[in-house]
Amino acid sequence: MADFNLMRELRREAQTKIVLLVIDGLGGLPLSPGGPTELEAARTPNLDRLAAEGTLGQTIPIRPGITPGSGPAHLGLFGYDPLTYVVGRGVLEGAGIGIVVRRGEVAARGNFCTVDSEGKITDRRAGRISSSEAIPLVERLAKVKVPGVETEARHVQEYRFAVVMRGPGLEPDIADTDPQRTGVMPLAARATKPGSQKAAELFNTWIAEARKAIADHPKANALTLRGFSTDPGLPAFPEVYGLRSACIAVYPMYKGLAELVGMSVLKFEGDKPEDEFAALAKAWSDFDFFFIHIKKTDSRGEDGDFAAKSAVIEGVDAALPKLLALGPAVLAITGDHSTPAKLKTHSWHPVPFLLWAPAAVRTDDQKQFGETACAHGGLGTFLATDAMPLMLAHAQRLEKFGA
Amino acid sequence: MADFNLMRELRREAQTKIVLLVIDGLGGLPLSPGGPTELEAARTPNLDRLAAEGTLGQTIPIRPGITPGSGPAHLGLFGYDPLTYVVGRGVLEGAGIGIVVRRGEVAARGNFCTVDSEGKITDRRAGRISSSEAIPLVERLAKVKVPGVETEARHVQEYRFAVVMRGPGLEPDIADTDPQRTGVMPLAARATKPGSQKAAELFNTWIAEARKAIADHPKANALTLRGFSTDPGLPAFPEVYGLRSACIAVYPMYKGLAELVGMSVLKFEGDKPEDEFAALAKAWSDFDFFFIHIKKTDSRGEDGDFAAKSAVIEGVDAALPKLLALGPAVLAITGDHSTPAKLKTHSWHPVPFLLWAPAAVRTDDQKQFGETACAHGGLGTFLATDAMPLMLAHAQRLEKFGA
Repeated sequence: MADFNLMRELRREAQTKIVLLVIDGLGGLPLSPGGPTELEAARTPNLDRLAAEGTLGQTIPIRPGITPGSGPAHLGLFGYDPLTYVVGRGVLEGAGIGIVVRRGEVAARGNFCTVDSEGKITDRRAGRISSSEAIPLVERLAKVKVPGVETEARHVQEYRFAVVMRGPGLEPDIADTDPQRTGVMPLAARATKPGSQKAAELFNTWIAEARKAIADHPKANALTLRGFSTDPGLPAFPEVYGLRSACIAVYPMYKGLAELVGMSVLKFEGDKPEDEFAALAKAWSDFDFFFIHIKKTDSRGEDGDFAAKSAVIEGVDAALPKLLALGPAVLAITGDHSTPAKLKTHSWHPVPFLLWAPAAVRTDDQKQFGETACAHGGLGTFLATDAMPLMLAHAQRLEKFGA
Repeated sequence: MADFNLMRELRREAQTKIVLLVIDGLGGLPLSPGGPTELEAARTPNLDRLAAEGTLGQTIPIRPGITPGSGPAHLGLFGYDPLTYVVGRGVLEGAGIGIVVRRGEVAARGNFCTVDSEGKITDRRAGRISSSEAIPLVERLAKVKVPGVETEARHVQEYRFAVVMRGPGLEPDIADTDPQRTGVMPLAARATKPGSQKAAELFNTWIAEARKAIADHPKANALTLRGFSTDPGLPAFPEVYGLRSACIAVYPMYKGLAELVGMSVLKFEGDKPEDEFAALAKAWSDFDFFFIHIKKTDSRGEDGDFAAKSAVIEGVDAALPKLLALGPAVLAITGDHSTPAKLKTHSWHPVPFLLWAPAAVRTDDQKQFGETACAHGGLGTFLATDAMPLMLAHAQRLEKFGA
């Protein structure tokens, strides 16, 4: 992983700008042996030019064979070994909608669900009710009181919400109440360590009151909680690397993650790559490092829609000239993990990585941005946590180690 | 890094000879995207034949993105993780000219410099005065006395010297007195840890007396000290690997480094590759392992002279038949780091690595010794600290691990 003390020792000031463009779930699979992946099937003249002018490689998000969730995968790209720095989904979800979770507070991610007359789950996502339907329900949850602690409940998206509990003696080691299948009742909150007994009991009280408050809804008549967690106390990204750092993302979780590591989360209108690159242009002079997140590749991969995932990549490619016109010193284009349409889910496969840095890159003989080309690239196969030192080096932002 | 306990457990006797030929700063960059590097531009029929008969790979000297100094980079090739085993420049410089620095003694590297009437530095290298001019000045420094301690000052090369202080209660944590720029006065020696206060004060006394002794010289009328350090207590290379080991190098620092890890430093006439290979031939029967160091690739890289760096490589290539005639079991040819002429300085880029070992090598499909070929080589991309176990294995000098 990125050795943070080494980074602190070697980092140096420079006028160079670094852009990390994360195309979520970028890595793919061919539909039949020897065929192209989603990225290889996409028509990407700009990415291919950058590949020819830069160098390629492929990252291992966590360890070989390990499929990452979005949180650990991004932490890895930011240089935090995901096996060392564990951030709970509750904290991530909360941070993404502006809930600050401090040490000693416990956050959880909530799902509305549908239960039958026996209390057994019939739909784990309450028919994916819309945000407009869910918001009034979350307002009811927000009014639930539990003696001795404060609770905060906020809507996230569709059937999802976040809840935080604040008070003395709370620990976050609590198992999910989502049984991950239908036909059974939601589980009780259960402490997995003795110190979390109190918080588990208080969450059970909150759940009971909350269920009363929504029991009359035809679809969202119950709820489950997952990812109980507290502030993991991550070292601050801007401090570790000496970079004024900004996040440009549409989805709450990625903004939350960026906030957790201390990046400034930029506000902007729109949700297309060109909107994100317009936000980049606007903030260009205020920061040294930009993390830009493109979500829809992952969504289309999870849908199993190969062509649609390729089309999202083509959209990013078409918008790229706007980004390049700003003249970054270093542009890294990669994914946080693979989401092959063939598998309809995240996977463990290595992730294509493109490093473009005109002043200092060692070009290789690869001319197209794709999985096979990346496997032959000059950077080789490396851990995602090594991406940050590589970007800093190419931006002339690291001193020599030793004489 | 090389696991020294594992090496001690598995090493075994054999009649095989291993040669590690380090071409300093070997790795380069194309001057324009897709062009050849210095190594690729050089005409190297012998190296290319060895590449075809052997296997290629590329090393990461320290960690991805980290640019190494010469000391850490060589330690890495010898199997010592440079982040664990830190050797100060003062100790290195001293060792290179035969000064033995023991634990509790403090060595520093010295530069003569020129100061104006206000004491401000006008030339950090005293006009790069010749060795013949500098030697009498160092003799004056050698006579400087500081009460309570012994000091030793010895000439290194041109404007450079080494100084060692011996006495009770000395610690080496002292900041450089070289301000790294002109127009300001040399800094005082300043302790960076409380325990080094005494040594810092004694060095300031020495500096004051030393400056009086040389004040009348027109160019070298002052001095700066850098790299205060003591014996790092490195495990002995010959013991760890079970190899009678020799160093063939022209420049003091590399001889010093070899001495520090316990290699025998061979004396010989001349400074050309063929002179070094002649020294190799002479000592062939006395050792199992030879570290041969070629300096001028790095120097020409730092000069920014692409063609001259290529020419040095061609010179090594031309002399190679002399080395090959000795019949080494294993010949590894690599650099300690990259020094691209384009950047005029050391860099973090991976380093070409060629492993030739007729009895045991798995050949790959690469036929030319160059960066792109090495990125495609059968050894892949690996940490420099793994080079020694690879060489030992190919020399049949490691037992099987486990039953």
